[in-house]
Amino acid sequence: MTGRLFIVGTGPGNPAQMTPETREAISAATEFFGYGPYLDRLDLRADQHRIASDNREELDRAQAALARAAAGADVCVVSGGDPGIFAMAAAVCEAIDKGPAEWRKVDLVITPGVTAMLAVAARIGAPLGHDFCAMSLSDNLKPWEVITKRLRFAAEAGFVIALYNPISKARPWQLGEAFAILRQVLPPHVPVIFGRAAGRPDERLTVMPLGEADANRADMATCVIIGSPETRIVPRDGKPDLVYTPRSFTGESR
Amino acid sequence: MTGRLFIVGTGPGNPAQMTPETREAISAATEFFGYGPYLDRLDLRADQHRIASDNREELDRAQAALARAAAGADVCVVSGGDPGIFAMAAAVCEAIDKGPAEWRKVDLVITPGVTAMLAVAARIGAPLGHDFCAMSLSDNLKPWEVITKRLRFAAEAGFVIALYNPISKARPWQLGEAFAILRQVLPPHVPVIFGRAAGRPDERLTVMPLGEADANRADMATCVIIGSPETRIVPRDGKPDLVYTPRSFTGESR
Repeated sequence: MTGRLFIVGTGPGNPAQMTPETREAISAATEFFGYGPYLDRLDLRADQHRIASDNREELDRAQAALARAAAGADVCVVSGGDPGIFAMAAAVCEAIDKGPAEWRKVDLVITPGVTAMLAVAARIGAPLGHDFCAMSLSDNLKPWEVITKRLRFAAEAGFVIALYNPISKARPWQLGEAFAILRQVLPPHVPVIFGRAAGRPDERLTVMPLGEADANRADMATCVIIGSPETRIVPRDGKPDLVYTPRSFTGESR
Repeated sequence: MTGRLFIVGTGPGNPAQMTPETREAISAATEFFGYGPYLDRLDLRADQHRIASDNREELDRAQAALARAAAGADVCVVSGGDPGIFAMAAAVCEAIDKGPAEWRKVDLVITPGVTAMLAVAARIGAPLGHDFCAMSLSDNLKPWEVITKRLRFAAEAGFVIALYNPISKARPWQLGEAFAILRQVLPPHVPVIFGRAAGRPDERLTVMPLGEADANRADMATCVIIGSPETRIVPRDGKPDLVYTPRSFTGESR
């Protein structure tokens, strides 16, 4: 008899942004697989066991979780944000795709969550209020030339661009290079939002024009949102500026 | 003394997918502005008043809500899904941008939510596990030529494409035309997901290859996700197929 495999997202880190559905899934499982800092967000009971692994061992972690679920355990795989956005749901599906036939019999329950770009957007206005794209800037899993091609297409299309995994110790120059590429296509006034730890006590939100955007403002916990030429800033006395992208496209700013 | 303006998203409609933060914001307000079916999702108290309006009157609704908040009321503007994705947060920001100076003094609290594409993705696997874009297919707010240009760029870029507002009585042919355009760029095997009312009792999920995709499968409550050439289907005996896009891009499928 196979167990269940829950794949959940904790949301951005603020417990008030985790859905009741996800909380219930966590309550139903007894073994938890995930990156340590995400597991730290859970209040586990004494009968619930954590198996922490490094951030880059996603396929190994998915396989380990599936093996335990196939053996009858109720298992939970934990991502930050939403599990379907640059996170563990795809790793588990890939492990099933390539794995033994019995893994296809495991009951899979995926609960959606609030992904980082939504939390950042909510704190600053509505930068994602018009067409947008979301890209991982990590070249661990795809060639850098594919990333640069996509950045150019996205800017030409007029998408607002949300960048996940913008920078890390092992990838220090990619975000600066991405800004340089985008400056070739987009006007310098386009707002760039550095949204770090949105909704958490250590939150830090910075907005600067693309022409002056400094990659050093980002770290691993930052989601970077680059506006389109239509994205606007609304100054407010005594309150943070609002940044939003109008629902209507007029093309006037081109 | 100005009141507060909460801008919330109910999530896809399943109450277990609404965050505690959003529930708390709803509890703190006394006047609710929104499209009737979204307001119907709330369990309002006797002292909480609903002001329902039609789906296409977003800017008017935002202005009415701001006027009440500026007059001192605690007001809540309600969207389905996430308020920042093709929804009311951008309409409120636009109303502030164009409105009287006192509207900039209103305390704005935006709570993020689970947007439709995340709920659909979670029910079927991980189609958004790699780079993707989200577009509204409505040509009420932008020219059709802008939409078709973006569809081509998105497909050329290799993005998975999530389409919001794919079809309505007033816009019956646009989705079929979008499929026709995408067939010129993408291979016919690319999976297309029609995700209707994900997580609700009337949920309906259908997957078909782009070569056979039939626009009549969609209605106003459907989010359509078109895979990339890398998106894969995992058949499972006695369970629904999984659809996922691998985290790694190899280019082998091209």
